Amino acid sequence: MDIKILMQELSDKGEYADGVKVRLRDNNVFLINVMGSPGAGKTSLIIELIKSLRGEFNIAVVEGDIAGKVDAEKIDALGIPVIQLNLNGACHIEPISIKTILGYFDLDEIDIIFVENIGNLVCPAEFDIGEDMKIAVLSIPEGDDKVEKYPLLFTKSDVLVLNKYDMMEYFEFQDSKVVKDTRELNETSNIFRISTRTGREVEDLSRDIKNRITSKYN
Amino acid sequence: MDIKILMQELSDKGEYADGVKVRLRDNNVFLINVMGSPGAGKTSLIIELIKSLRGEFNIAVVEGDIAGKVDAEKIDALGIPVIQLNLNGACHIEPISIKTILGYFDLDEIDIIFVENIGNLVCPAEFDIGEDMKIAVLSIPEGDDKVEKYPLLFTKSDVLVLNKYDMMEYFEFQDSKVVKDTRELNETSNIFRISTRTGREVEDLSRDIKNRITSKYN
Repeated sequence: MDIKILMQELSDKGEYADGVKVRLRDNNVFLINVMGSPGAGKTSLIIELIKSLRGEFNIAVVEGDIAGKVDAEKIDALGIPVIQLNLNGACHIEPISIKTILGYFDLDEIDIIFVENIGNLVCPAEFDIGEDMKIAVLSIPEGDDKVEKYPLLFTKSDVLVLNKYDMMEYFEFQDSKVVKDTRELNETSNIFRISTRTGREVEDLSRDIKNRITSKYN
Repeated sequence: MDIKILMQELSDKGEYADGVKVRLRDNNVFLINVMGSPGAGKTSLIIELIKSLRGEFNIAVVEGDIAGKVDAEKIDALGIPVIQLNLNGACHIEPISIKTILGYFDLDEIDIIFVENIGNLVCPAEFDIGEDMKIAVLSIPEGDDKVEKYPLLFTKSDVLVLNKYDMMEYFEFQDSKVVKDTRELNETSNIFRISTRTGREVEDLSRDIKNRITSKYN
């Protein structure tokens, strides 16, 4: 399928996030902002969540990237509506772009939108895009000092995914340090220890998402 | 030792990079800008290069981070002069900060300064800081699509380090794809396949740095 590619608009106005929120609520859509480093495994995580949730929900995806559309092609191959947002040099997705993108989806036919933010631990955390849920993805090979070094993302996230957890034995990664650093910033985020290769805890995160949707819309 | 911590100044003026260059040349100092994702292994690479080069050169380090000073403490433990630059919310190091920092070092006593840029594949590539050499660090667990997705860094780098190369067997990473994507952007960068754990190709990169210093100053 031809993948729609949009260039990001830039605006200083945070107010667009509120417009997104209203639009989502009016259409019973739940929007999930997925953030993490380049190579943390955001696309693979979204793909596994799609597989787990698509029986119950209609899903769409927005892929934010500096260049190219390789991730969008992977989503498209699943038969899931996807829009590629090219970031026009910016290192984060702005709410005005999400507002524009919502116009390209048939929201009556969509229950969940995953937004894969640009691979970056800094800028995306600073911009609310009108999302219902923020997922921070930290992969084991990145090391256990990332919460301490990039606190904002982990402060603002509803869920922390420790990804590539099947790689624990090959890296010096202290799970307890990450939990301690996270809890100093954020008492309530749910932590999942996931491997998209083995399926470890994917269903648990899936259930967490379903619970949040239920509590928003029921 | 007490680690000096500076807050980044922000300026739109790229001209500071030229001032840095003049200052380096006047003092026979070679400045290396090390860039890559969070967790790509930049600090470990700098530490191995310090071990390899400190017999012949006096070395100093600048650690750029959003928050904290964990990396600076690792460098300090080696007895190497280090300044922590806290980035004041920015996602890159600006040349004006490097200009200020040069004033804190005794440049007569320094031959090489490593600058560890913030963990980020986007913004740091956009800012020259007056460096003599740009090293891009891409670790195997991040995946082989990063050159395609974040082209600017790889276009502008003098050296590409494929780091954590000892992890090749555990990840689906096509070395040839990365080489091909890199060569489309950059015909001349040298590529090293490094493991800081096993020491693989660290000496080769060390030799590359020595050659560049010789060709600048002899």
